[in-house]
Amino acid sequence: MDSAANHALMWSRLRRAFQARLPLPQGTEPHLGGALRDTLLHPGSMVRAELAYRIACSFGLSEERSENLAIAIEYFHTASLLFDDLPSMDDAQLLRGVPCAHQVYGEGAAILAALALINRAYALVWKTVAGLPPEVQSAGLGYLESHLGIAGLLNGQSQDLHYSRLSEHLREPQSIAMGKTVSLIRLALVLPAIIAQAKPHEANLLDRLAIFWGLSYQTLDDLKDVLHGDDVHGKTAARDACLDRPNLALTIGIPESFDRIERLMNLGSRMIARLVHRRPRLAFLRDVRIQFNQEIANLSEAGLTRAS
Amino acid sequence: MDSAANHALMWSRLRRAFQARLPLPQGTEPHLGGALRDTLLHPGSMVRAELAYRIACSFGLSEERSENLAIAIEYFHTASLLFDDLPSMDDAQLLRGVPCAHQVYGEGAAILAALALINRAYALVWKTVAGLPPEVQSAGLGYLESHLGIAGLLNGQSQDLHYSRLSEHLREPQSIAMGKTVSLIRLALVLPAIIAQAKPHEANLLDRLAIFWGLSYQTLDDLKDVLHGDDVHGKTAARDACLDRPNLALTIGIPESFDRIERLMNLGSRMIARLVHRRPRLAFLRDVRIQFNQEIANLSEAGLTRAS
Repeated sequence: MDSAANHALMWSRLRRAFQARLPLPQGTEPHLGGALRDTLLHPGSMVRAELAYRIACSFGLSEERSENLAIAIEYFHTASLLFDDLPSMDDAQLLRGVPCAHQVYGEGAAILAALALINRAYALVWKTVAGLPPEVQSAGLGYLESHLGIAGLLNGQSQDLHYSRLSEHLREPQSIAMGKTVSLIRLALVLPAIIAQAKPHEANLLDRLAIFWGLSYQTLDDLKDVLHGDDVHGKTAARDACLDRPNLALTIGIPESFDRIERLMNLGSRMIARLVHRRPRLAFLRDVRIQFNQEIANLSEAGLTRAS
Repeated sequence: MDSAANHALMWSRLRRAFQARLPLPQGTEPHLGGALRDTLLHPGSMVRAELAYRIACSFGLSEERSENLAIAIEYFHTASLLFDDLPSMDDAQLLRGVPCAHQVYGEGAAILAALALINRAYALVWKTVAGLPPEVQSAGLGYLESHLGIAGLLNGQSQDLHYSRLSEHLREPQSIAMGKTVSLIRLALVLPAIIAQAKPHEANLLDRLAIFWGLSYQTLDDLKDVLHGDDVHGKTAARDACLDRPNLALTIGIPESFDRIERLMNLGSRMIARLVHRRPRLAFLRDVRIQFNQEIANLSEAGLTRAS
């Protein structure tokens, strides 16, 4: 099967799991139920879930554990978007091409839906590690805690939110992206390897790949914010400038941002080469690079059109 | 040592742990750090932590595991208060006698602080069960998930929030209290017993005690909302009538609410008698009943004063 067909199959499998892993009990309050149902119907690209699933399988974790972990990471990510879009944060109108949950069901329902995703995500991570050796469980759950918590995602999100009021030495878009964006990419790339008992050297290579990809991804996202309209990428555009949020494309310029993505992706490819050399089943990581290149090419074209 | 001295000692031990279990790393964003620091400095009564700690110890769990579990439950509870007080929910001004985190540091910081407490709470629960038999881990983590998630606390919170817009058959204050209030009391009373491998019969008695106490506690809270001013119980008063929230004292009347509390507490005492008969170390549960009676007496007096 070619890479595109493989990708489509994987996506539809993970999409089904994304919906099925959080069944709504009878008697669920209608606003909370509505916000969750809409969220589960729009899983987005699920790139984190796909990466986590394929890495876990490549390192020999069972399909069931791999799928549970993949969906858990996607739930954590989706919850972070629900929070991020609230009026008190980015005040977004659109997520994944549809009106935000807080717009349709109210802020309270959006918050409670995000918490339901988080509660379920922890339970799925737990199912993933149940019965594994205690030291593997501890390593995995410790990694999860540190990258989701105040040393990781939450601090990045807070720096992003209070950017304009931060003192100079904290106003470093790269360190903010490390917390806000790299944390979740790390969970997608490294956590499955840790739980599947990869060698420390392999986990380190994946960790560096996560940093290069995460920073590229954030730069691409910043470029999208600057170059695209609402209708193109399914979320509210040009928010960073309005809200005085860190945006690399605004800080270093548009061509420099494309160069930076290129440089980071090349560094990532070196990590992939070393990983595949040791473990050929990780060759799928090259496909992700190809998809990413396609996104960059599309965006680059849009940028030129916009500039012209 | 008498019961009051014992209680004071326990409180100061748990209070220290409440602060110490969530160290803020260098570089924590100042709004997030401020919201967390203030929250950790005002632990409230810690009644849930004390119950969880003493039940866990009574069933033979180590002091360290018991303390981790107690603080985890208190963090979950505190996070629920931070969310509950947001402008989109109860829009409260005061919590535990001081201005709410969202008033001082902004809504975004309050939300991220609550998520930091939740992230840490899951990690502490994990530390509590690490190395225990897999079936005990699964039973404990399954109980946690179901009472925190959409079948428990989150649904109760959502019903509370959307009370006025619920259809008639969902407008049942008691079922809302089961989700909103009983869930966390259950975690405090039953989860420690499950993790400490109590007999199913003992866990069942504790589960029924949690229901009786949780419903009493909610009724008492509803009475406080009706009878007290801001200054007395450290949070914003008379919110339920303003916000059209379920309030039993408003629904069935003030004297009837005092009767109901009495009835529920008596049912609880029968559970305690059966528990202590089997496990004398649980006799401390009687002290909780005595403290609760004192609170009721104070409130009853305030009610008479207010009425006069």
